[in-house]
Amino acid sequence: MLKFKAIGVSEGLAHAKALVIKEADLTVVKNSITDAAAEQKRVIDAVEHAKKQIELLRDEAEKNIGAAEAEIFDAHLLMLDDPDFVEGITNLIADEMVCAEYACFVNCENFQAMFRAMDDEYMQARAADIGDISQRILKNLKGIADNAIDSISEPCIIIANDLTPSDTAKIGSKPVVGFVTRIGGRTSHSAIMARSMGIPAVAGAGEKADEIKDGEELLLDGATGEIVVSPDAETLSQFEQKKTAEDERRAMLVQFKNRPGETSDGRRVIVEGNIGTPEDAVRVAELGGEGVGLFRSEFLFMDRDDLPSEEEQFEAYKKACETMAGKPVIIRTLDIGGDKEVPALNLEKEQNPFLGYRAIRICLNQTDLFVTQLRALLRAAQYGDLRIMFPMISSIEEIRNAKQVLQQAKDLLDAEGVAYNPNVKVGIMVEIPVAAVCADMLAKEVDFFSIGTNDLIQYSCAVDRINEKISYLYRPLHPGVLRLIHMTAKAANENGIEVGVCGEMAGTPGMAPVLCGLGVTNLSMSASAMLAAKADLAAHSFAECKEFAERLLCAASATEAEQLFAEWRA
Amino acid sequence: MLKFKAIGVSEGLAHAKALVIKEADLTVVKNSITDAAAEQKRVIDAVEHAKKQIELLRDEAEKNIGAAEAEIFDAHLLMLDDPDFVEGITNLIADEMVCAEYACFVNCENFQAMFRAMDDEYMQARAADIGDISQRILKNLKGIADNAIDSISEPCIIIANDLTPSDTAKIGSKPVVGFVTRIGGRTSHSAIMARSMGIPAVAGAGEKADEIKDGEELLLDGATGEIVVSPDAETLSQFEQKKTAEDERRAMLVQFKNRPGETSDGRRVIVEGNIGTPEDAVRVAELGGEGVGLFRSEFLFMDRDDLPSEEEQFEAYKKACETMAGKPVIIRTLDIGGDKEVPALNLEKEQNPFLGYRAIRICLNQTDLFVTQLRALLRAAQYGDLRIMFPMISSIEEIRNAKQVLQQAKDLLDAEGVAYNPNVKVGIMVEIPVAAVCADMLAKEVDFFSIGTNDLIQYSCAVDRINEKISYLYRPLHPGVLRLIHMTAKAANENGIEVGVCGEMAGTPGMAPVLCGLGVTNLSMSASAMLAAKADLAAHSFAECKEFAERLLCAASATEAEQLFAEWRA
Repeated sequence: MLKFKAIGVSEGLAHAKALVIKEADLTVVKNSITDAAAEQKRVIDAVEHAKKQIELLRDEAEKNIGAAEAEIFDAHLLMLDDPDFVEGITNLIADEMVCAEYACFVNCENFQAMFRAMDDEYMQARAADIGDISQRILKNLKGIADNAIDSISEPCIIIANDLTPSDTAKIGSKPVVGFVTRIGGRTSHSAIMARSMGIPAVAGAGEKADEIKDGEELLLDGATGEIVVSPDAETLSQFEQKKTAEDERRAMLVQFKNRPGETSDGRRVIVEGNIGTPEDAVRVAELGGEGVGLFRSEFLFMDRDDLPSEEEQFEAYKKACETMAGKPVIIRTLDIGGDKEVPALNLEKEQNPFLGYRAIRICLNQTDLFVTQLRALLRAAQYGDLRIMFPMISSIEEIRNAKQVLQQAKDLLDAEGVAYNPNVKVGIMVEIPVAAVCADMLAKEVDFFSIGTNDLIQYSCAVDRINEKISYLYRPLHPGVLRLIHMTAKAANENGIEVGVCGEMAGTPGMAPVLCGLGVTNLSMSASAMLAAKADLAAHSFAECKEFAERLLCAASATEAEQLFAEWRA
Repeated sequence: MLKFKAIGVSEGLAHAKALVIKEADLTVVKNSITDAAAEQKRVIDAVEHAKKQIELLRDEAEKNIGAAEAEIFDAHLLMLDDPDFVEGITNLIADEMVCAEYACFVNCENFQAMFRAMDDEYMQARAADIGDISQRILKNLKGIADNAIDSISEPCIIIANDLTPSDTAKIGSKPVVGFVTRIGGRTSHSAIMARSMGIPAVAGAGEKADEIKDGEELLLDGATGEIVVSPDAETLSQFEQKKTAEDERRAMLVQFKNRPGETSDGRRVIVEGNIGTPEDAVRVAELGGEGVGLFRSEFLFMDRDDLPSEEEQFEAYKKACETMAGKPVIIRTLDIGGDKEVPALNLEKEQNPFLGYRAIRICLNQTDLFVTQLRALLRAAQYGDLRIMFPMISSIEEIRNAKQVLQQAKDLLDAEGVAYNPNVKVGIMVEIPVAAVCADMLAKEVDFFSIGTNDLIQYSCAVDRINEKISYLYRPLHPGVLRLIHMTAKAANENGIEVGVCGEMAGTPGMAPVLCGLGVTNLSMSASAMLAAKADLAAHSFAECKEFAERLLCAASATEAEQLFAEWRA
């Protein structure tokens, strides 16, 4: 039995076998060869093997996701059947007497360049498919097994360096009951996805994760971050007892589903869900969310090589509105940069991306991109209570400039006679320290605030929230952070506008009454955290919340505040 | 004539010919050769050429800097005379039939590995010298001219991508009258050095710098960032007039040299200098500085492969104290990480170094390093009013932990019977937003504050201060920034402790009265800015300063505050 602890990032208990995912080394070296025929044979075999893999994937996708999603694999098969493509590789081998891997790599570059040069958006996008199938052939040549996630058929806990968005998307249709990553923390992408899917997860396990071997029995506690490898009988039985108790608590929480968020004496705190795709809204609605407090629209832009069209965005925003059936849906405009990449925008690498060219800074510079999104939002606002939220605001000028672009989008729609809702509410994320400090001035310019605690903590404490080395400094209960939240809430209250929290803090167990006490009126979180937040609120009166928040504001340090918080919850 | 504008980073006017410095490409490729003897001859020639270059450098160093500094070149010559070293290269050529460049590269690696493996610190440090001479031979092999800075003999304006600390150090002894860099901004290392040396400089010129050709006549205005290439007669005459006026203003400022910093009605504001080496203190004292408000001790640790010993540090701190003859010398403990590298510490690369493992975070973790520095500081404090300042403080715990290590250093000195000054004042940098927000609590733990506006602006506005793409967001007059400074000063005033500003803002023309009005009691800046700051203070009463600061605090935006500031100065 081996026990260790890392960062618990998604609550819940899991018990299953470990599935260890290793990262493949796809480096290619230009090696000379002497037997061209043998090398060509290797290519033919790798291509045939790739076809079989893709056929399997297509069938699975059709079964688990849908016919439309499976079509991409048909396109891949067609390319592999194209003699020009395969001969591109075999000819290179014969002409230059180079190894199959190198020929495959060069052929991929050639074909991608050809597709990219075409004056047709669809054909240009095919360059990505060429990359996919070339990588698959390369993996087969190198004898690297296919992505282990694809072949999961029985319950398992995944162990990986990190999970990409496409990995986490695949997990949804697999019997994955938990995962452990070497890197990352509470706010890394995979952690957010885990919470939204309700899968227990532990991050930042570092080298300790390497000690887990494929197939070993694992216990995982996503709240405490504890991991047990090959548990003994006693540990196992204790764990199972705990799991039963947790299941019971979950059953208890169901009573809050159709109740509004409020303190025991009826002070309303609107409890909403954070989503990344319109599909996620279904779970928010099912779990009694009183709205969507944060739709991260950038997820529509990630993991693809082109930009979503106005139409595609419109459909996505509309779908979320329709799913929420009249309840508020706050859509944050493109918040990319930082740790979120959008290949189509081709942004330069920066030395400190979190302090760089991102979010509204990009949108106010590349207004064509911004106008397209705002047009889609204005049109979709006909189908519900859609609200627009600008991220990374640091000044009144940015608000005014963003509103000017919004007006421009309206003017364009007017000129074209396209229908839209002109009365959309406009708000901002308060996540940059000066925005909190100047909240009294900013409140006069917008309809609502939403405090992004992840970034607010990151900037106000000067601590990269995904750097494990200094994660001990990332403290939501730092009195300085609480004071900034309090300043922001006070300014909003005095100006009669709503003020939400949509960072991880909103969904942290026990935190809802604290934020309510600081003056926050809305809380938006992972769907899976909403019921517990309502239960937490219902357990206290507003006066109690306020009095406790006051005490935290006067704590001398984060440690003192954390002790007070632990005592208060006990 | 060509005119353009970039970021003015060091005031002053310069008129001279351009010296364009290109970065050398030292990539090495393993090429096969057929004529080993010819290749070996190339090596011998390159080595002989290197010897001549080094002899020249040694003689220059001896003349311009000192005999001790010239010794390093003797060591280099000895190595080049070592037959093992040169034969290491020539044998590799014969044995493996590879090109001279590759053999030189491999031989360097071998020798460095050998030196590093030795159980002797001195010999280990020689690995760096091996690197230096190997690089020199490689440059000779590739026909790349020696560093252009070394051969400067007549007045010139340097055009470069950026200047390394060693480049700027070299400039001190050369008739360089200005420089232009492609990258960087007001707070990049080379800009800070330019101001401390009093050399006009413009940064962030980007691709426009590429249009300047070697030898072209240049006019440079380090205040406005304007550059004129090959000026016409009229432009030249206007420029010369302006230069004369500036020279006159400089002459006027001399009257402030021996006067204290104060407003027209006698409110004291102590005007001090920022330094990077003890030698810099000479200029601070000469220009009437009332102390050293910031000694950046990390400069003792940079651009070298080993760490400075306690003794070496002690001598440096002592020298600064002695130069300042009883006036305060605030020494900031090691502030590395971020954009400042210390090779000997071998720190991992981080995704967002400015939000990472740096400064006090490193010192509290690697306490051996910290104890050595604190011992040197405590001992040097016998020779003047030395004060210790901890950087990047975000909480009371960090202050208490740092003080504990300080106590540990005292205990060690006591145990060893080593003399030191136990009554050293201890302060902190306020540069992380939560520190400003919690200044009321932190003020009770320390003897003084010093506001690091560079980092405070960077974090509170979430803008990397060396990323040109978003430099428009780096606004010292953002009302949020001013409010944070005000909060900090207020807390310090109420607790009866000094509160300085040691960021670039302190030395910005016209800013001294504003900071005085916000409650700041000390201003520390580049030595070259001190006289103007005293003149600015003397031009206003304290009531005027306070009233104007109030107006800035209520400005709706940085733009509005900047307009008010411009009007006020006009």
